[in-house]
Amino acid sequence: MPKVTEDHREERRQHILDAAINCFTRNGFHQTTMKDISKEADVSAGTVYIYFSSKDDIIEASMRRNQEARAARIEATKREGLTLQSLRELWDYYEKRMAKAHTDKAWKLWIQLSAEALRNPRIRESMRANWDDAENQNVELLRRAAEQGIINPDLDCDAIGKMFTALHDGLVLMKIIDPKKDVYKYLNAFRALLYNCGKTSSSSVKERRPDDE
Amino acid sequence: MPKVTEDHREERRQHILDAAINCFTRNGFHQTTMKDISKEADVSAGTVYIYFSSKDDIIEASMRRNQEARAARIEATKREGLTLQSLRELWDYYEKRMAKAHTDKAWKLWIQLSAEALRNPRIRESMRANWDDAENQNVELLRRAAEQGIINPDLDCDAIGKMFTALHDGLVLMKIIDPKKDVYKYLNAFRALLYNCGKTSSSSVKERRPDDE
Repeated sequence: MPKVTEDHREERRQHILDAAINCFTRNGFHQTTMKDISKEADVSAGTVYIYFSSKDDIIEASMRRNQEARAARIEATKREGLTLQSLRELWDYYEKRMAKAHTDKAWKLWIQLSAEALRNPRIRESMRANWDDAENQNVELLRRAAEQGIINPDLDCDAIGKMFTALHDGLVLMKIIDPKKDVYKYLNAFRALLYNCGKTSSSSVKERRPDDE
Repeated sequence: MPKVTEDHREERRQHILDAAINCFTRNGFHQTTMKDISKEADVSAGTVYIYFSSKDDIIEASMRRNQEARAARIEATKREGLTLQSLRELWDYYEKRMAKAHTDKAWKLWIQLSAEALRNPRIRESMRANWDDAENQNVELLRRAAEQGIINPDLDCDAIGKMFTALHDGLVLMKIIDPKKDVYKYLNAFRALLYNCGKTSSSSVKERRPDDE
């Protein structure tokens, strides 16, 4: 396909995706039909179906887009080389993204999808894959930071990277529902614990796992 | 009102509440009518209205019930006196509650309510009040633990208590959608950071706040 047509297709696909996200966040996932999406995008219903075969398809594309933006940012940091400076910039990116979560339709949609995931296996699977992906990226970044002495190498990067993923999602949820929440305060608490921590032996904290699990 | 009638009323109210939660988690909040709830509870529609004037009323009662259970547990710990032992027991309670989140209908309903909160101001207000309440409780517990030397007194209890609320909610969200998640791993990471932390000066971590916020 010639480059210009490909670009045009991709542009149109993104336009329909944006229109769908508008509809979903305004009226809810269930109350939105493919017809509503075509109206919002100002294209024919047939055109929507050229790009997406169902609402589930659109949902997956929207989740993937969010994920790709994050992955691209992290890849860029890794390419630059992981220094204290580049890690700070990456952290700034995360902080700003979270602090603006309430203005971002993709995040509002994400809450709806969380509710939807309880009954829709395909969405559930996408969310799980997305979490795995975010966790792996966080863990890898922490490991590299530990290797370079930016954080204490005795820290359990695997557990902390996973924990940050949960903290991130909890914080985004709060911010969307209560835009007055000061996410910087929450994130500073995490940073302070992370940077000041592990300077003493970690032997006083034992791994705990109740017998009943 | 005689005690026995009062008890009966309360029992009946809880029964209707349970039936409503069943309906909401099975079919969604919007798709459930007051009539569905009366059927599920096996009472007349009129009886439901004696106890609750609307679905929103039921939702609020369900959120309050969850909150009251947590508050009662924390009050009991405070009455006993805050020792390392009683704090450990409280932590165990939290851990187990989170580890079982996927089996608890009240938590599944909570995800639906989060989505609903975007469009329903009354639910949004309840969620905010619930968060404030949880944050205040966490902060108070941490302060007392710091006073007693159980955790490092230089830690920022206010910020960490709030942060834990976000971590808690993010983790519950993950656990409900992906029951295989090992919440103990995430919580151990938090505990390890909390207990081992702050042994060095905290001056290396400055409060950050971008100008654009």
